[in-house]
Amino acid sequence: MTWGMEGVGDLVELSVSAWVNSPPIDLADLRGRVVMIETFQMLCPGCISHGLPLAQRVHRSFPDGEVTVLGLHTVFEHHDVMGPDALAVFVAEYRIEFPVGVDRNEGRGIPETMGRYGLRGTPSTLLLDREGRLRRSIFGAVDDLSLGVLLGRLLSEDTPAETA
Amino acid sequence: MTWGMEGVGDLVELSVSAWVNSPPIDLADLRGRVVMIETFQMLCPGCISHGLPLAQRVHRSFPDGEVTVLGLHTVFEHHDVMGPDALAVFVAEYRIEFPVGVDRNEGRGIPETMGRYGLRGTPSTLLLDREGRLRRSIFGAVDDLSLGVLLGRLLSEDTPAETA
Amino acid sequence: MTWGMEGVGDLVELSVSAWVNSPPIDLADLRGRVVMIETFQMLCPGCISHGLPLAQRVHRSFPDGEVTVLGLHTVFEHHDVMGPDALAVFVAEYRIEFPVGVDRNEGRGIPETMGRYGLRGTPSTLLLDREGRLRRSIFGAVDDLSLGVLLGRLLSEDTPAETA
Amino acid sequence: MTWGMEGVGDLVELSVSAWVNSPPIDLADLRGRVVMIETFQMLCPGCISHGLPLAQRVHRSFPDGEVTVLGLHTVFEHHDVMGPDALAVFVAEYRIEFPVGVDRNEGRGIPETMGRYGLRGTPSTLLLDREGRLRRSIFGAVDDLSLGVLLGRLLSEDTPAETA
Repeated sequence: MTWGMEGVGDLVELSVSAWVNSPPIDLADLRGRVVMIETFQMLCPGCISHGLPLAQRVHRSFPDGEVTVLGLHTVFEHHDVMGPDALAVFVAEYRIEFPVGVDRNEGRGIPETMGRYGLRGTPSTLLLDREGRLRRSIFGAVDDLSLGVLLGRLLSEDTPAETA
Repeated sequence: MTWGMEGVGDLVELSVSAWVNSPPIDLADLRGRVVMIETFQMLCPGCISHGLPLAQRVHRSFPDGEVTVLGLHTVFEHHDVMGPDALAVFVAEYRIEFPVGVDRNEGRGIPETMGRYGLRGTPSTLLLDREGRLRRSIFGAVDDLSLGVLLGRLLSEDTPAETA
Repeated sequence: MTWGMEGVGDLVELSVSAWVNSPPIDLADLRGRVVMIETFQMLCPGCISHGLPLAQRVHRSFPDGEVTVLGLHTVFEHHDVMGPDALAVFVAEYRIEFPVGVDRNEGRGIPETMGRYGLRGTPSTLLLDREGRLRRSIFGAVDDLSLGVLLGRLLSEDTPAETA
Repeated sequence: MTWGMEGVGDLVELSVSAWVNSPPIDLADLRGRVVMIETFQMLCPGCISHGLPLAQRVHRSFPDGEVTVLGLHTVFEHHDVMGPDALAVFVAEYRIEFPVGVDRNEGRGIPETMGRYGLRGTPSTLLLDREGRLRRSIFGAVDDLSLGVLLGRLLSEDTPAETA
């Protein structure tokens, strides 16, 4: 694990075809908050055993939303059995409390947001700063301690209002 | 946990519409082996986190099949998103190694084997003796130590050949 | 893990210089019960993280004592800092509920019971049948499922009274 | 868990009668680094199962010492069986890699550093900023995620050199 943040680019908006647990969300509207996006597939074992429980712990640790957690269902395989109906049951059965977006996918391949962010697979954890800019993208399991350090550093950065 | 075995009845055959990982299996053909049937639904969190990993551990602990582990997909809700295609993906992604049967269900309600065995939900763990007779039915989580004791007791019973 | 029991010898009595949590115990007096002896040293990390918690789970799973759990403090190194006073604090702080004996050690080397049973180190788990005869000796970590199977098999054996 | 840091006071130096794994350390010499002090007693179960493993994880996560981890043996009970000789065996057996100090205790009661910092018991986790000032004192278990956030925030603060 390295602790440095990645180079800062522009905000890259999500492309979501449907939301569960929430009305539509634009990253631009979350400006001022640190954002964690947990990308997953509902039949990906590592997502179920590790990524989503971790996202749930972060969500509950910041009830005021200072760190805002979003799930993103980035289906890139087995599309037929991980459609919106199946996802809705999954989110309900697993009692996932944070908003979950369906990464838009017109065809059969890589969905749109996954492509924009250049993700390699699931689970991937994306950390965005208070300006909505991607600062870390982690493929695979990240431990709680390391994720906490990264969140703590992002939380310590000035808010846009303060820097404007 | 009580350690006594339940009253002994007759062998109750499975009703399975399809098998994954295996040609069709009749309990009658497993006579002489202790059998553990792990019933589950692929979108049941307790089955994923507890029941199936436990079944996997038992399966690997008895490579000679002296304890034979079977999975049974007893879908009694959300039938549309837990069909045979979804189950096949699930079994492959989770690398489940033992045979998994689909509990036959002509309608929308309780599937046939679940009804025959009077199960209350998922996960349920069924333990059958060497004669194929149900000796314990456990609804919900069972710990490894207790399950081991029950299996050890069933393994100590005479085989049919010896009693005939 | 193999499931066969080891060759049956005679009962080998403990040599204990002091007991915590209990008046003196002779194995001969436990005839009729399956006995698990968990040998440990209070500053052995594997004993603390694995062996003693497992022994505690077995102890609690058989409140009627059908499986009787004993601890045995087999100190073979660092004798000065693992004496009886330190052990008494340890047992109290860790809330160990079963009887713990101090393996007698007149010198500085291997204590007496450890020698009699030919133990290689700590933790070692000894399983005795209803006649008090050693049937399995396991050095190092044993998983709950496997231990349960072994206990279940020993529990299924006839009691001395029945065989006499 | 609240995320705010506590009021900033002066650096409070340790009072240590002996060090294991290290030559003597003064907090003043660690200026510029974030410091985590894990206070424990070697026969405190919560310290063994939770506090020290967590400290070990933090120590390994920052091999460059940007977060410097120290252990402090704050014995306030059972002094006879938790002396320096016993501690040395404990540190070796548990393969604790970071420096461990013995909190100075001339009498039988609360040791000196424990008193200076007003600690309530063990385990307690102390977080010091780059100026060596106490910013958080946590009694009991703290989870990895929360500790990480606090460390991340302290790491984001300017170093003394930068502020001078």
